[in-house]
Amino acid sequence: MFFIIINAIVLGLETVPVINNQLSTSLHIIDSVLLYIFTIELSARFIVYRQRFFHDPWRCFDFIVVAISWIPSSGGLSVLRALRALRILRLVSVVPSLRRVVGGLISALPGMGSITVLMFLVFYVFSVMATNLFGQVFPEWFGDLGASAYTLFQIMTLESWSMGIVRPVMTEFPYAWAFFLPFILCTTFTVLNLFIGVIVAAMQAADDTQPDAGAGTSDQIKLTNEKLNALLSELHALRREVSELKKG
Amino acid sequence: MFFIIINAIVLGLETVPVINNQLSTSLHIIDSVLLYIFTIELSARFIVYRQRFFHDPWRCFDFIVVAISWIPSSGGLSVLRALRALRILRLVSVVPSLRRVVGGLISALPGMGSITVLMFLVFYVFSVMATNLFGQVFPEWFGDLGASAYTLFQIMTLESWSMGIVRPVMTEFPYAWAFFLPFILCTTFTVLNLFIGVIVAAMQAADDTQPDAGAGTSDQIKLTNEKLNALLSELHALRREVSELKKG
Amino acid sequence: MFFIIINAIVLGLETVPVINNQLSTSLHIIDSVLLYIFTIELSARFIVYRQRFFHDPWRCFDFIVVAISWIPSSGGLSVLRALRALRILRLVSVVPSLRRVVGGLISALPGMGSITVLMFLVFYVFSVMATNLFGQVFPEWFGDLGASAYTLFQIMTLESWSMGIVRPVMTEFPYAWAFFLPFILCTTFTVLNLFIGVIVAAMQAADDTQPDAGAGTSDQIKLTNEKLNALLSELHALRREVSELKKG
Amino acid sequence: MFFIIINAIVLGLETVPVINNQLSTSLHIIDSVLLYIFTIELSARFIVYRQRFFHDPWRCFDFIVVAISWIPSSGGLSVLRALRALRILRLVSVVPSLRRVVGGLISALPGMGSITVLMFLVFYVFSVMATNLFGQVFPEWFGDLGASAYTLFQIMTLESWSMGIVRPVMTEFPYAWAFFLPFILCTTFTVLNLFIGVIVAAMQAADDTQPDAGAGTSDQIKLTNEKLNALLSELHALRREVSELKKG
Repeated sequence: MFFIIINAIVLGLETVPVINNQLSTSLHIIDSVLLYIFTIELSARFIVYRQRFFHDPWRCFDFIVVAISWIPSSGGLSVLRALRALRILRLVSVVPSLRRVVGGLISALPGMGSITVLMFLVFYVFSVMATNLFGQVFPEWFGDLGASAYTLFQIMTLESWSMGIVRPVMTEFPYAWAFFLPFILCTTFTVLNLFIGVIVAAMQAADDTQPDAGAGTSDQIKLTNEKLNALLSELHALRREVSELKKG
Repeated sequence: MFFIIINAIVLGLETVPVINNQLSTSLHIIDSVLLYIFTIELSARFIVYRQRFFHDPWRCFDFIVVAISWIPSSGGLSVLRALRALRILRLVSVVPSLRRVVGGLISALPGMGSITVLMFLVFYVFSVMATNLFGQVFPEWFGDLGASAYTLFQIMTLESWSMGIVRPVMTEFPYAWAFFLPFILCTTFTVLNLFIGVIVAAMQAADDTQPDAGAGTSDQIKLTNEKLNALLSELHALRREVSELKKG
Repeated sequence: MFFIIINAIVLGLETVPVINNQLSTSLHIIDSVLLYIFTIELSARFIVYRQRFFHDPWRCFDFIVVAISWIPSSGGLSVLRALRALRILRLVSVVPSLRRVVGGLISALPGMGSITVLMFLVFYVFSVMATNLFGQVFPEWFGDLGASAYTLFQIMTLESWSMGIVRPVMTEFPYAWAFFLPFILCTTFTVLNLFIGVIVAAMQAADDTQPDAGAGTSDQIKLTNEKLNALLSELHALRREVSELKKG
Repeated sequence: MFFIIINAIVLGLETVPVINNQLSTSLHIIDSVLLYIFTIELSARFIVYRQRFFHDPWRCFDFIVVAISWIPSSGGLSVLRALRALRILRLVSVVPSLRRVVGGLISALPGMGSITVLMFLVFYVFSVMATNLFGQVFPEWFGDLGASAYTLFQIMTLESWSMGIVRPVMTEFPYAWAFFLPFILCTTFTVLNLFIGVIVAAMQAADDTQPDAGAGTSDQIKLTNEKLNALLSELHALRREVSELKKG
């Protein structure tokens, strides 16, 4: 954890131009040393866990993050150098409370499965339609399927949807609002329901972890019924005795 | 379902200019073949269900989507060609889990009825007022009732409401904020309440489907009372015997 | 209600330039006739209710809306002419389900009282500070207290806050972000809590109207205890008899 | 409280240029007098509470706010003069209902701790990556770590994220969307979960303050069990008597 924080600081310092120019080599050396330390640590863990190493998703994450740094960043792959910053995220896998938060966030995802598929479908259908309808006049926004999907995502986030996109489109296609307003209402409502699903799931999870007041009550009623059984058998015994007394 | 996915891919490929130019005819043929398959499938269903065919809203949806494709798209009706993409949405009517999600979304709509009517009324009133007040100076935004309603919808989504619309309007009408700020507060609050209504309904639905802990308790208490009745009658019998013993 | 809808249509038609030019006089006549009808209706109600007329807020609303139309709209008061559109909102006071929805919305307001006062205070403080800090360099946005409050409201709605306002301000005052980011976080969090307050209130209201499952259980347990009392007294009687038997 | 409101009005009047020019000296005098009054009040409190003075966070807040006004605002420190406006916030520490609201808001903060740390981490990692990737081509937006963090915050609030930032970036880096879309989805989802956490906490707090219906039931069942114990011992006594009767 200490090394990760140092790594974070080094990566932060590298972004400051002045410092980077003066200390470029020393920062580079520290970075390399830290990478070796992480690699050795991971190797040690790998020797301990062996086959089970990849069972824990956190260890997989650590492995990928460290492995990325070993790919030679020559050529145009400056992107991979930028991905070194992901190493800072190893802090999450080291600090338990952060692990729990991320675990909680990820556990909310499966419940969003089918609504996400629906969302994807709606995006695909509207993207195809938008490309067919507006693609030739506005190639920058609706030129191909990807551009349409991106523009529709922007419209869904309501960013500049009207002044930036729909009003210019409406100068060419006066009825374009009949395409975009339903899309906005439709996707906003679906996203809202996605959120509500997460909220309801979170509430139920909170309910379940609460000390359940009903459980104690239920236990006590079971006790009552057991005592009543004892009473009944006691009464039977008494009645038998009285019967014997009567006969005698 | 298999055919729908192929159809989705074909429609997606048609939007890529390069592919479309080269394979235009073959894609067109596949599309036609798929349309025939869908039509035959729907006809078969129609023969099976007959009058009850239109009782299921999903079948109605399928019928409309396929029927649209048969309308000749000659003339300027390129819009109808774009609507072919709706056929991909047939996936929803085929995959049960998606059907359930969409069903859930639609079932949330009726509870929003009267608040939607109120929203429509507020929009109508503010549109009439905006057209009267600002229509002559800003014909592009408030020229007629439709333009005003569209602009107010944009303002409600908070997109460029200030820099794009209200600040320019305020250079002409310095008190325009007294019109727009109440509108924003009013509609935002109403939309918020619309959302809250949906959330509360979703929570209650979630509560109802939960295995009810209270029900088991209630059953056990009924059992207790039945046992007590048995006890009482037993005691009565015993007392009668004792009385007889006394007399004897 | 019928007249109100006609009134709504007339007001809508007046906004269409072409129709307004041709039918201006006839629309004006219909409008006047409807105003007379509304005035007579309200007068009739006033005679019926007399002093209690202004006790019902809906009647007050009707009265104000109709009274506005009687103010002569000569001079520059075209604003008052625009306010005639408020008459359409009388539909709300006539249709019961809409009345209920609006009543529900208004009933949510008092719970927001103190948080609104806090919001007002925060706005006032930040407006004074923004006017002092940025007023001289950006008179258009922060020239006086009103302009500052308006700009801060825009920033709170997150509309063009960065590209439109804060980035230009930061070219003059590089540390302006230290003023605006806390403001955004602060107001967003407060508005969020305002919403949560409304949601929690709505949930509790929904809980209270639900048929309470716990009540039935509680009743049954009371029954149990009464039966136990009967059992006890029965047992006492039996024991007394046995004691007598023993003595006898 | 009376003085605070006067202070608020004075500070408000100072922002109006016309009034400020004419009454500059008199407003300045009132402001100084009020500052003396506040200082005397705080000194009095300090004498009363002594060591315990700084135990109450509200008194600390009062102290800081008044102390700021005594720092000489000569030099370029016009910022400190603007901070005088914070004195108006003393109203919050004086009015109990506002104190309660602010207390409620602050009490919601600790539960947001670890998710805020996670958020900070995500921002740091993405800022480092953005600076490395886009810093040289767009120095204004991603020039250093601070600029990147500010731009990413703007993107998180969805303000002009596409038209203002990502589309220009995409003209240089066509795959920039693969960086920004995950960032938007990731942070929006995290913020949503932050909100849900606050909502769930508020709901549970509301639940806990409600009179608990289950508690009464539980008490009554305990009563039932006690009565059953009495019954059992009564029966035992009876049985002993019958046994004695049998022997006798």
